[in-house]
Amino acid sequence: MRRAVALAARGLGTASPNPVVGCVVLDATGAPVGEGWHRAAGGPHAEAHALAEAGPAARGGTAVVTLEPCAHTGRTGPCARALIAAGIARVVYAVPDPDPTASGGAAVLAAAGIDVAAGLLADEAEAVNAAWLTAVRLGRPHVRWKYAATLDGRVAAADGTSRWITSPEARADVHLLRARADAVLVGSGTAHADDPHLAARDIPGARQPLRVVADTEAAAVKPGARVLDGAAPTLIAVADDIPPERTDPLAPHAEIVRLPRAPGGRGLDIPALLAALHARDVRSVLLEGGPTLAGAFVAAHAVDEVIGYLAPALIGEGPAALTGAGITTIASALRLRVTELTRVGPDVRLTAVPTTVPQES
Amino acid sequence: MRRAVALAARGLGTASPNPVVGCVVLDATGAPVGEGWHRAAGGPHAEAHALAEAGPAARGGTAVVTLEPCAHTGRTGPCARALIAAGIARVVYAVPDPDPTASGGAAVLAAAGIDVAAGLLADEAEAVNAAWLTAVRLGRPHVRWKYAATLDGRVAAADGTSRWITSPEARADVHLLRARADAVLVGSGTAHADDPHLAARDIPGARQPLRVVADTEAAAVKPGARVLDGAAPTLIAVADDIPPERTDPLAPHAEIVRLPRAPGGRGLDIPALLAALHARDVRSVLLEGGPTLAGAFVAAHAVDEVIGYLAPALIGEGPAALTGAGITTIASALRLRVTELTRVGPDVRLTAVPTTVPQES
Repeated sequence: MRRAVALAARGLGTASPNPVVGCVVLDATGAPVGEGWHRAAGGPHAEAHALAEAGPAARGGTAVVTLEPCAHTGRTGPCARALIAAGIARVVYAVPDPDPTASGGAAVLAAAGIDVAAGLLADEAEAVNAAWLTAVRLGRPHVRWKYAATLDGRVAAADGTSRWITSPEARADVHLLRARADAVLVGSGTAHADDPHLAARDIPGARQPLRVVADTEAAAVKPGARVLDGAAPTLIAVADDIPPERTDPLAPHAEIVRLPRAPGGRGLDIPALLAALHARDVRSVLLEGGPTLAGAFVAAHAVDEVIGYLAPALIGEGPAALTGAGITTIASALRLRVTELTRVGPDVRLTAVPTTVPQES
Repeated sequence: MRRAVALAARGLGTASPNPVVGCVVLDATGAPVGEGWHRAAGGPHAEAHALAEAGPAARGGTAVVTLEPCAHTGRTGPCARALIAAGIARVVYAVPDPDPTASGGAAVLAAAGIDVAAGLLADEAEAVNAAWLTAVRLGRPHVRWKYAATLDGRVAAADGTSRWITSPEARADVHLLRARADAVLVGSGTAHADDPHLAARDIPGARQPLRVVADTEAAAVKPGARVLDGAAPTLIAVADDIPPERTDPLAPHAEIVRLPRAPGGRGLDIPALLAALHARDVRSVLLEGGPTLAGAFVAAHAVDEVIGYLAPALIGEGPAALTGAGITTIASALRLRVTELTRVGPDVRLTAVPTTVPQES
């Protein structure tokens, strides 16, 4: 199963809106005879890959798969049927399929007399598929908030300069995060201050993410902005009361989406923004700030993972990484659990997930 | 030498104002026959301990010592003479003694025909003695700034609550830092807001640090404050224009020191404060904030090490860990190098040192 999880991880960044899945087929003696992983929606599922590689050796053997084999016919046939047809005697999977249109595979297999076991290495298989599982369970994309700050939590100096707080190694690491995300999202403050490009650079074989700017007043992204350069698709989300003439100059270069404003707050309604992205098959969002947009996401309980790049530097002035989250006392702080801590060049990368369950949109 | 460095570390928190030193004596065949470390000023030096344990076996042997053996007679005789008298044939030391009153030991040994080698594991031996070496070289105490903050760099919430940002494990770790420091220092903001006790709790065998409050206006520490309870000595530093009647009520419970105000700034003159502590045999200061005092130390180039306890939590409002450091643009940020990164309970402890050399006071 550890091998199957590693195979599944190869699909990160390309399998979406499908889950990443890895599969290893063992013959009747327990020897591995086939491997597969799901590369892209519309292409063969992991089980089909592994069964094809195993051929007749699969008969009487075991399929080890990270996700419950699907029972539905989508763009490809149901994997449960394929496993039965190949004569597999035993199926071991890690995580049940929460998708109501595809689940039920385990029952189909058991009804065919196949020995089915679930839960092996479930935590690791969950982690590799966190984005997709979150999207299915909550009906909205998984949101990973990335920030880069000094030790005193500053994302820029008092004069607005922020290039560069972190090292080239850390910035290269962010491009890998972009390549693995379906969408990269910034707010109007970042769009205005940095004119970011938001594409994944220098990642061989990367699928470019959808570039998204939450530009409520349609004031930050101007014709000629780097995000409009065609290197990747772009979506500009504006408030639904913005007149068309304000966005018409951008329309040739980006999709314009009108969304309700946040009730009683600044900016757009976060659940509406996530719903619009979900409707476009976005299962994972890399939220790249700035502090105000991140605060709106925290306030909306819509941050599923935090990745902080901490530069060993001190400034003492300038904006903090997060603002306006609506938390006024220490007892209400958003508490997280550190899931990974590592060095990236001279910087530190800290990954954490909320200890309370995020809400549906 | 690695063993000698480990022995030296046992003196942290008790050897000051002397250096920590470890020594291993090998006999003529290279077998270890004696060990020693310097526990406290006035007590035997590491070499004397190790030679006593080795006895006659030291003759023709090697002394491995973390610091160049001293050549002066202080409260104990010079170690160089003791090594010669014991018939040691070879001395290997890690770090030269920068103290002009004690150095020259290597020359004395060489003049007596002993084979002398320097520099073995010098980095590790430097690190264990960082506080004392800094104090000798710069003529002021080594300053370790400790802070505890959320991932977004907050040391309190908007309503002022800060108990507790970090975990019990992290707070216990801070008591170990206090026990290893000669003095623990806070500013008036922290004294006023938290009424801290500042002693080292639950550390067996700990020597209590000098508790120091930089209370410029003599307004933060009031009679009955916990820092005046007699559990450890206390020093209150106030501005030299504060009338005696303002500090008289505190005098029975603490030493009152009058210092010049910072030129053109708020608070006390940091070099004067450090000089006053150095004159009291303080070689290491644990600066426990808050943000304003830490900013004054950063501005004075008087932070030698930073230890940050990072709680995996987000607030979005409230004071940052550092303010008023006089840095306005990213190019002027104080850059550091991460020397240690570890988890303490659910929190992260990050240790870093400036990449530029701190200034003398």
